[in-house]
Amino acid sequence: MTKNLRLGIDVGGTNASFGIVNSDGEILIKGSISSKGHQTPIVFVDELYKEILGKSGVDFFERIKSIGVGAPSGNFYTGNIEFAPNIEWEGIIPLAKLIEEKFLIPTKLTNDANAAAMGEMMFGAAKEMKDFIMVTLGTGVGSGFVANGKLIYGHDGFAGELGHVVAVRGGRACGCGRKGCLETYTSATGIVRTAYEFLEKKSMKSSLESLEKITSKDLFEAAQNGDLLALEIFNFTGEILGQTLADAAAITSPEAIILFGGLAQAGHYIFAPTQKYFEENLLMIYKNKINIIPSLLNENDAAILGAAAL
Amino acid sequence: MTKNLRLGIDVGGTNASFGIVNSDGEILIKGSISSKGHQTPIVFVDELYKEILGKSGVDFFERIKSIGVGAPSGNFYTGNIEFAPNIEWEGIIPLAKLIEEKFLIPTKLTNDANAAAMGEMMFGAAKEMKDFIMVTLGTGVGSGFVANGKLIYGHDGFAGELGHVVAVRGGRACGCGRKGCLETYTSATGIVRTAYEFLEKKSMKSSLESLEKITSKDLFEAAQNGDLLALEIFNFTGEILGQTLADAAAITSPEAIILFGGLAQAGHYIFAPTQKYFEENLLMIYKNKINIIPSLLNENDAAILGAAAL
Repeated sequence: MTKNLRLGIDVGGTNASFGIVNSDGEILIKGSISSKGHQTPIVFVDELYKEILGKSGVDFFERIKSIGVGAPSGNFYTGNIEFAPNIEWEGIIPLAKLIEEKFLIPTKLTNDANAAAMGEMMFGAAKEMKDFIMVTLGTGVGSGFVANGKLIYGHDGFAGELGHVVAVRGGRACGCGRKGCLETYTSATGIVRTAYEFLEKKSMKSSLESLEKITSKDLFEAAQNGDLLALEIFNFTGEILGQTLADAAAITSPEAIILFGGLAQAGHYIFAPTQKYFEENLLMIYKNKINIIPSLLNENDAAILGAAAL
Repeated sequence: MTKNLRLGIDVGGTNASFGIVNSDGEILIKGSISSKGHQTPIVFVDELYKEILGKSGVDFFERIKSIGVGAPSGNFYTGNIEFAPNIEWEGIIPLAKLIEEKFLIPTKLTNDANAAAMGEMMFGAAKEMKDFIMVTLGTGVGSGFVANGKLIYGHDGFAGELGHVVAVRGGRACGCGRKGCLETYTSATGIVRTAYEFLEKKSMKSSLESLEKITSKDLFEAAQNGDLLALEIFNFTGEILGQTLADAAAITSPEAIILFGGLAQAGHYIFAPTQKYFEENLLMIYKNKINIIPSLLNENDAAILGAAAL
């Protein structure tokens, strides 16, 4: 019997998932609660505590020796969630401290993409890698950069905001107040913006015209059915992503770039154009050396495993 | 008397400078030879050996316990110079190995910007820093990224090519075969390209018109004399540099960015617009946190000290 267990918690905009993990990266107990509808973070932490204790039982619970939390805009150094646009509490939330005080177990916190990168490094596609980039293509675009075998947190704990690197100077308005950020093009919501733009501009016939509200899943299905406009939308998205990744590669020279999250589920429809434009835009010394690969972890498990590994 | 000394060598396109350094970062003996006119790298290393031995004398020479070399396109992992455009020998040059075999002293090599970053971290403006970016604005633009207190070499040893991040999509032709690279705008040669472009396009009167051949030093002097076109050229250069640094900051979240090299000598003419556009383009969480500062090391010493510290 493994004595020491770790608790990993992945706080998203809709749900907070948790898992109790042993040292082999097996998730022994799993669950989730809604991350919405709690008046204060304290109420949220109380509910989370009850749910985890209920699922694990006291014996299991007592073997948890550390807690790791992945959360959007999570800061490793402070343990705070700071100004996260997709979380219902505003401002600075000292989540690690609140959890530590309630659970009485040492707690670390980082942003969700860093947690996923950590999970990938411990148990997934980056198992033997010391230099890689993890890119999450979800509602937004997040990233975790690993160099010399360590996550780059940066001076203030906010490193890895690849989603807010400017991919198109003067381009689409971003929720951050700036223009042309990568996530306005290559997130699951960004690609839907492209779809509406293309439907407006292009004269091509498309099955997408009949949809009332387009989702990134619709685009994937249309592409699978050979819809040319959908294929063009993926091509455009891959071009922007490939270009921006080529610039990021020139900074940290990674062994691989791992794509993860909703949009990465579109498989070769997104991977093929991304890799193509990535290679086209790479500086010569990096060409044909850096693979763009999918995550090897289950979507919901990566951040839990990574957070547990903090 | 310090027993152990280190030899730092900075190989540039014109000269190779060297210094014998003690553990306090004092350069005890200094010198240089031309890096041009040697038929083979072996001939170059032989001449370097003679010059260093001649300057130091046998007693001093015998106290050298390690050698570090900074060189353009130098690879830390292989010890090779690989396809350097400004070096007269083509292809892959195993310089660290050649030096080690001639001097019979363990030798490490990295690129010149990484060496300068190391020098800055050991003895200069980044003394207490664990996360910073060193940017050299010389004939080209080089960079060294430090995260978690360590230089990022990347998987294959070629990390930190900020000069070849695309600053202007589809912009100026670069020596690397691509378009719009940062160094085509913000190197000492890039700013001269801007000067010629602006002289062509703008109707403004300028003292630069009378010059037969413009250098970056001429631009600095014209700016000092209040030449409006020269000031506009610095402003434009600072805008491109500031924008690109804002994106780089979103990746590694540095404490500071250190500017170094010929163009950085222009002082506030380049620092002021760079910092201004940097702040304007930063994601909110980084604003007013990251200083853009000059190197504290003598231009010629930084790479020697850094190389010695390898």
